Amino acid sequence: MESIATAYTESNNIPRHWTLSSVKGTLVVDRKYMEGLKDMQAGQRIVVIFYFHLSPEFKPRHLVQKPPHRKEKKGVFSTCSPYRPNPIGMSVLKVLDVKENVIEVRGMDMLDGTPVLDIKPYVENKQQFQRW
Amino acid sequence: MESIATAYTESNNIPRHWTLSSVKGTLVVDRKYMEGLKDMQAGQRIVVIFYFHLSPEFKPRHLVQKPPHRKEKKGVFSTCSPYRPNPIGMSVLKVLDVKENVIEVRGMDMLDGTPVLDIKPYVENKQQFQRW
Repeated sequence: MESIATAYTESNNIPRHWTLSSVKGTLVVDRKYMEGLKDMQAGQRIVVIFYFHLSPEFKPRHLVQKPPHRKEKKGVFSTCSPYRPNPIGMSVLKVLDVKENVIEVRGMDMLDGTPVLDIKPYVENKQQFQRW
Repeated sequence: MESIATAYTESNNIPRHWTLSSVKGTLVVDRKYMEGLKDMQAGQRIVVIFYFHLSPEFKPRHLVQKPPHRKEKKGVFSTCSPYRPNPIGMSVLKVLDVKENVIEVRGMDMLDGTPVLDIKPYVENKQQFQRW
């Protein structure tokens, strides 16, 4: 696994989840993968899989955690916590523009400098899949 | 990164995408992470992030590919192809049952024996997030 892109944002106020976010930023893709951005268009949504690069090592006590917006503790696989066995995050972002190797996006919930592992089209149902 | 679970299915006819799949299978989670399954319930949907363990090494010629169901070539980041710079897959599965460390699921599009890297709740919007 290696970083294929880096996520940048100037915001210091990053929401806990992309569903709560209108934060803008950019994904700067490694130029060697630029050709893979063909067909990505402003207006579409993308799934961004990234690495929680600042998360401390996962410990057994993180198996059950209290999310900040909840009163009760939850199993880690029922949370979006960055403290996970494998520190992988997933967000759905709106594409605002694509120029060369830079994707301008909205809806960011990752920190400035986050390494991106993969980008996929956001497909919710069979009809959308047939169009992709 | 290490496998937290393994996906099993008896089906030999795996659809290309979870939106097309009603294939049943199981995710057998490493017992050391079993406590993290607390709160996972039959009926909910989960995001499963997995490793395309049988994909050959990514080559520059894979940057643009023709998906089997399309006539034209597409940039890899606009496809769900298993030939990607980082061989990471993502599927949304329906939970049918959870017993100890075994999650029974429907909607599989991964091959029998696929290593799973992470499991998250499937959250589509702000209202769902608040409930999680």
